[in-house]
Amino acid sequence: MPKAKNILFIMFDQLRWDYLSCYGHPHLHTPHIDRLASMGVRFDRAYIQSPICGSSRMCFYTGRYAHSHGATWNGIPLKVGEMTLGDHLRQAGMGCWLVGKTHMKADVAGMERLGISRDTVIGARVAECGFDVFERDDGMRPEGPDGFYDEGGALKYNAYLREAGYEGENPWHDHANSGIDADGNVLSGWFLKNSAEPANIAEDDSETPYLTRRGMDFIGQAQDPWCCHLSYIKPHWPYIVPAPYNDMYGPEHVLPAVRSQAEQQDAHPVLDAFMNSPVSQAFSRDEVRETVVPAYMGLIKQVDDQMGVLFKWLEDTGRMDDTMIVLTSDHGDFLGDHWLGEKSFFYETSIRVPLIIYDPSPEADATRGTVCDALVESIDLVPTFLEVAGGEVPDHILEGESLLPILHGQTTETARDAVFCEVDYTTSSEAGLLGASADQATAYMVATKQWKLIHFESGHRPMLFDLENDPDELNDLGLSNEHQEVIARMYDRLSAWARRISQRTTVSKKALEARRVNQSGTGVLIGIWDENELPPKLTAKYVGQKVKDKRG
Amino acid sequence: MPKAKNILFIMFDQLRWDYLSCYGHPHLHTPHIDRLASMGVRFDRAYIQSPICGSSRMCFYTGRYAHSHGATWNGIPLKVGEMTLGDHLRQAGMGCWLVGKTHMKADVAGMERLGISRDTVIGARVAECGFDVFERDDGMRPEGPDGFYDEGGALKYNAYLREAGYEGENPWHDHANSGIDADGNVLSGWFLKNSAEPANIAEDDSETPYLTRRGMDFIGQAQDPWCCHLSYIKPHWPYIVPAPYNDMYGPEHVLPAVRSQAEQQDAHPVLDAFMNSPVSQAFSRDEVRETVVPAYMGLIKQVDDQMGVLFKWLEDTGRMDDTMIVLTSDHGDFLGDHWLGEKSFFYETSIRVPLIIYDPSPEADATRGTVCDALVESIDLVPTFLEVAGGEVPDHILEGESLLPILHGQTTETARDAVFCEVDYTTSSEAGLLGASADQATAYMVATKQWKLIHFESGHRPMLFDLENDPDELNDLGLSNEHQEVIARMYDRLSAWARRISQRTTVSKKALEARRVNQSGTGVLIGIWDENELPPKLTAKYVGQKVKDKRG
Repeated sequence: MPKAKNILFIMFDQLRWDYLSCYGHPHLHTPHIDRLASMGVRFDRAYIQSPICGSSRMCFYTGRYAHSHGATWNGIPLKVGEMTLGDHLRQAGMGCWLVGKTHMKADVAGMERLGISRDTVIGARVAECGFDVFERDDGMRPEGPDGFYDEGGALKYNAYLREAGYEGENPWHDHANSGIDADGNVLSGWFLKNSAEPANIAEDDSETPYLTRRGMDFIGQAQDPWCCHLSYIKPHWPYIVPAPYNDMYGPEHVLPAVRSQAEQQDAHPVLDAFMNSPVSQAFSRDEVRETVVPAYMGLIKQVDDQMGVLFKWLEDTGRMDDTMIVLTSDHGDFLGDHWLGEKSFFYETSIRVPLIIYDPSPEADATRGTVCDALVESIDLVPTFLEVAGGEVPDHILEGESLLPILHGQTTETARDAVFCEVDYTTSSEAGLLGASADQATAYMVATKQWKLIHFESGHRPMLFDLENDPDELNDLGLSNEHQEVIARMYDRLSAWARRISQRTTVSKKALEARRVNQSGTGVLIGIWDENELPPKLTAKYVGQKVKDKRG
Repeated sequence: MPKAKNILFIMFDQLRWDYLSCYGHPHLHTPHIDRLASMGVRFDRAYIQSPICGSSRMCFYTGRYAHSHGATWNGIPLKVGEMTLGDHLRQAGMGCWLVGKTHMKADVAGMERLGISRDTVIGARVAECGFDVFERDDGMRPEGPDGFYDEGGALKYNAYLREAGYEGENPWHDHANSGIDADGNVLSGWFLKNSAEPANIAEDDSETPYLTRRGMDFIGQAQDPWCCHLSYIKPHWPYIVPAPYNDMYGPEHVLPAVRSQAEQQDAHPVLDAFMNSPVSQAFSRDEVRETVVPAYMGLIKQVDDQMGVLFKWLEDTGRMDDTMIVLTSDHGDFLGDHWLGEKSFFYETSIRVPLIIYDPSPEADATRGTVCDALVESIDLVPTFLEVAGGEVPDHILEGESLLPILHGQTTETARDAVFCEVDYTTSSEAGLLGASADQATAYMVATKQWKLIHFESGHRPMLFDLENDPDELNDLGLSNEHQEVIARMYDRLSAWARRISQRTTVSKKALEARRVNQSGTGVLIGIWDENELPPKLTAKYVGQKVKDKRG
């Protein structure tokens, strides 16, 4: 097999790491994704850097922590000047294309300040997080009294549905994201009680198969070498899936929620605020879990079937032989674990994601089908891809490390011994409940293979979990006297991380180190008493001058 | 007197805080600067953020820490996208002009990546650190076997000298920065032994009077309201000054070096490397201090006389009535204190700078002639100026605080209880001596009014000074058992600072806090079981739909 020349970077949205059979789910069988794992390396400790769509993705796409790029929540523009995957790959001669979701919000003010217009190639890329856009679909076209959530959301997909004969104001909602009951009532997928109904759409027209086809459309005409970010919307809410996936699973397939009464009774004040959000309250009810989780599982089953379609097509077209395939997710979904819904806290359920990398090159033969428990971060993908593209990894900009040495069996560990994650919940109702300002409504996590520390800027005490002895994270040791030394050491790691130089992005480390000289060759002579202290060539311009007259 | 409508932002280079008579120097009388202090507020605890020209200035000009903007040493470009004083002031309707030095290095690669050309107004500003340039003069035109240190250095000044009849290849060196002895020999100012000679130039043609005139040229034709950064090159080396300033001071006026044998014997390894640099070795010799310090004092005396010229002209033209005058320095000069030369360490000698602010407005009458010992940082100037210009201070970008409340007598303290400073010595020979990589050759300082902690990324132990009981910083308490608790608390401050959100610059804190809502009005409904849980207006688009036929 030739070396990988292209990269297919597949991302799912809100896919829990443990909801795939290769990651151990007992009822949800995902043979196509499992097969990819058998052909590549399955990473068992892959972490995202911020448990919310937009912020997590900006870390994936920049190869930098949210603390470095600043887009710490949905709707916070990624500032102009931050380099992205596309910038790096194009420098190495590889195209970088988008099919699907990014959750990018353009820094319109910054672009205007710098005179960068969206109408130019450069401006279009800056506005689209560095991608050339084959099709952008952030998959969201909800509408309320204040208008649309996203003016540009799902426009092409809605046009596709209309073309296919789906009627109504907003077929994205009325068909793809609504159920239809036995009496022919259209029931919105926004209401969880409707999750068990089949979506009001032919399966083939729903979002996941649609994006699979769009991905194949792109690849079929792409110019080598390319990186294609095929970025699916599902299994993200609305939790509704077309037949036959809507009733493949039932309450008997819903795993018990990972939670304890003690968690609720002695909850840390910040966690308590998250537990009190409407979505957490909802997912704490058995009725909700038993209705929603089967739909969530159905969405994943559909995703897996589409991976079967895609992989077969890649084989038929020869692309399986020259394309690295990366499959991951932007974060998980609590689904009631720890009395929480959604994802914006630091339990493994949310911050650990599936990550499977298939490398067709012979160098990767030794690791096919293996599982790697190295501590991996989402920011490792940009350097990995850049190395595949043949570029040099700018380690003064990128904060992760290439996974190629692991894929090629040269090592089984990354260089790091801890992973980091951040959440900025300033815009969330929880911050209001806590009375936390924009400076206070943030929290950081640092985790080694054994310990996880969570620090809150709100002034509350830290939380600590022993991941080895309490893998379900049910026992918060933040107040444990005997763990204060562990907490102190974890704080040392967090502080060293926070102090890291992340903004010195205009000169490489190697170039800076090369500037070390005792005396400059450009005439700056510091601390020299007499010209004889230096070799004559350094002082040639400065010695032996006689004045000619008063003024020269 | 009317309210200040213009700002004259005067900066000197390498002027120690204690080398002015209003700051207590016993022999160096600076009546003109002292007079400005008597008309305004003299800040006694003003700190810079990085003890090196370029990096310190980028903090002054961006209002952000070096850890935030990334230009951590001379020659590291300030990355495109960082907002500057000029960007902020122009948004508030005030022009922002440069006359003199900035030490800005343009991010040429970043500009090219974003398609920003220097030939445009925007591009010219990006390349010049946000200033509109009346005259840039970084004051350096040294030349060695590898060419000029700065291709663009002192070009206009050199042209001026040639026009005035000064001959030679490089009159900046041969006249302004060389001495002339009794026999008519031209002796380079780069060699410290020549420092006592008069510069080979008429006093009126030397750099300081020249820049004063250029400042007046600008102001005389400037359109209100303006901010003028009149940025002098002196008393920075080469240490050489024209008559009569060259022999105004002698060895009898040189204060003893602040140093002790113990400092050398038990030096911290990083400090020891700095002590071993050629410039530190030179300034540890009495002969060097006794020759150089009088020239340094002469340069400051000349500066003060030029301030007399400038202030008189401002009075004569009426500008003293409507112009805020700010006078400061980018850092100090060790001059042999602590066995060091130059400036790139954290002793007060270097990181504390003179700062005098004269505000002509009646609101400032109550504070004229007062001394303020609040902890002030260089990053406070941008918000101060912006408030004068009538703009709103974007506290998600700017990291300092306006000093207007102090100037107007509303408070005597800033909000902070600690100041921060950083040094990145990666490109210095000291890093080579220590074998420190680009990740290791950095150090941070945090100081309250009493304590100063220095943390080294090289892995060496911290240093601690008790500024109240050891104001000369002769006794490093880093190893003192009884101070470990103080050290731990200072580390807490440093860590909290390092964790600060500095890159979330695209949305204001206020705007983020305003986004806190329980349910969105744009149709995203999270965790809702049934439509009856919400007011009908939020669900209007989602209820009561009947299907018409199979496809809509």
